[in-house]
Amino acid sequence: MAERFADGFVAVDWGTTNRRTWLVDAAGVAGAEASDDRGILACADFPAAVAQLRDRAGGRPVLMAGMIGSNRGWREVPYVAAPATLAMIAAAVTWVEPGFGIVPGVSFVDGTLADVMRGEEVQLLGAAALAAADADGLVCHPGTHTKWVEMEGGAIARFRTVMTGDVFAALAHKSILSDLLAHDAPVDDSFLAGVDHALANNDLTAELFAARARVVLGRAEAVHAASYVSGLLIGSDVRTGLGRLRADVVPVLGTPVLTARFAAALTRAGRTAVEHDGDAAFIAGMVAIAGAL
Amino acid sequence: MAERFADGFVAVDWGTTNRRTWLVDAAGVAGAEASDDRGILACADFPAAVAQLRDRAGGRPVLMAGMIGSNRGWREVPYVAAPATLAMIAAAVTWVEPGFGIVPGVSFVDGTLADVMRGEEVQLLGAAALAAADADGLVCHPGTHTKWVEMEGGAIARFRTVMTGDVFAALAHKSILSDLLAHDAPVDDSFLAGVDHALANNDLTAELFAARARVVLGRAEAVHAASYVSGLLIGSDVRTGLGRLRADVVPVLGTPVLTARFAAALTRAGRTAVEHDGDAAFIAGMVAIAGAL
Repeated sequence: MAERFADGFVAVDWGTTNRRTWLVDAAGVAGAEASDDRGILACADFPAAVAQLRDRAGGRPVLMAGMIGSNRGWREVPYVAAPATLAMIAAAVTWVEPGFGIVPGVSFVDGTLADVMRGEEVQLLGAAALAAADADGLVCHPGTHTKWVEMEGGAIARFRTVMTGDVFAALAHKSILSDLLAHDAPVDDSFLAGVDHALANNDLTAELFAARARVVLGRAEAVHAASYVSGLLIGSDVRTGLGRLRADVVPVLGTPVLTARFAAALTRAGRTAVEHDGDAAFIAGMVAIAGAL
Repeated sequence: MAERFADGFVAVDWGTTNRRTWLVDAAGVAGAEASDDRGILACADFPAAVAQLRDRAGGRPVLMAGMIGSNRGWREVPYVAAPATLAMIAAAVTWVEPGFGIVPGVSFVDGTLADVMRGEEVQLLGAAALAAADADGLVCHPGTHTKWVEMEGGAIARFRTVMTGDVFAALAHKSILSDLLAHDAPVDDSFLAGVDHALANNDLTAELFAARARVVLGRAEAVHAASYVSGLLIGSDVRTGLGRLRADVVPVLGTPVLTARFAAALTRAGRTAVEHDGDAAFIAGMVAIAGAL
């Protein structure tokens, strides 16, 4: 790492609803995670929130990634256009004030395709640094907005977002499915049936209703509908994410509860999924970026 | 009509959020619509709400259809299994008390397919009575839950529900798209682009996010995103509804603002859409049911 990182630094994953911070030492080893609910939407006063970080940092640099760099964050940081390398992303870190840098997101445009990410780029670079993802290949990052990323030569070359978690939450919040989606949605036979249906069909908004109709008609139990709907959405996600790519082994990067769901769906699609902890990848990515500054 | 309908009757479309009533004379001609917000979810006291109807009816029979016959309504009325004829539906009208009949919904099961309707069956029978729909053919009934119905010999033979309006409303209410979906969504070039995309692809939950990414990247205007998303969902609906059926001419039954959107999408799919007013079909359907009692 550069001289100013000689005493380590603070890595911040500053998202929409939460903020998570780690103190990373000069060897790149992270201490315990500290998290709070000062996500950007709950944060009216960025200077005050940053002052709090400054106290924690004790003079060390602070590297932030995620929605903190969006137009609703502390400072809007322009996207780096894909294909985006570690060096390009590090060079575009924006120092809002001395010692406080925001990592840029990545954009992708190809014909009518257009996509953006903010935060996931750090985990992707971290996965590459940890050799958890090949320099060339497909990586899945499941979440509220799942990212399917094609890496080329260690760069983020192309990607597509699928808003699976967001759609599930919206339906659970307010739709004819709300009652059913209040149940737990374990990875079980109903989940796999939903995955299988979505992998083989193109009728998502109809099959969502069928999940309820089967319960109404006594052909399925209400407690299984949430798993089926989760399977439908994740199966659709996987089908779209894999596209026409020949990817036999797919690293899945994120929180264990989500990577397990997507690994199950990828297995159903005949692929080998390899799960990786997203936090470890985030730290590794921040260390890689700090090292490239 | 039977003797007890000699002075006409009151037709009630009693749904989840609204209740609409018409006084229909002995010749089957309806007076002005009266509507209120006493939908079943707002109605804690059905006897009181029914007493109000009784005053309006002045001794005439009251025929009710819609969610009033669901497990959240006044009395749960079992579904008639498709294929369902006018005679079968009329025979299954449930008289909750003298003079107050609830028209049953229709269910459809075929292998793993399962579906239900409550209320639309009246419009479908009415369209057949009006010769607005052929005795054999596909009918589209767009809405919160669009129904695509295959009529055979005047009976409701098979159908599939697509929860288009419900998904749009859920995304508008609470998702990353909420801000964009607060705009009007006219039937314009953006709408048609969404329809075209959905007719040709199988990536709905990804393309929904792309609608936002294009705005973020300055490749589309925020005011056009709602039309594009509406087009994506309605295009998916039409693609699913048409399925593998050879239907060159498709009657579209419902409220004019909705039938226009679906007619535009069907035209894009190379079909001839013929729009019909859903209220007229509802009255005709209730008259047909009354006549069969």
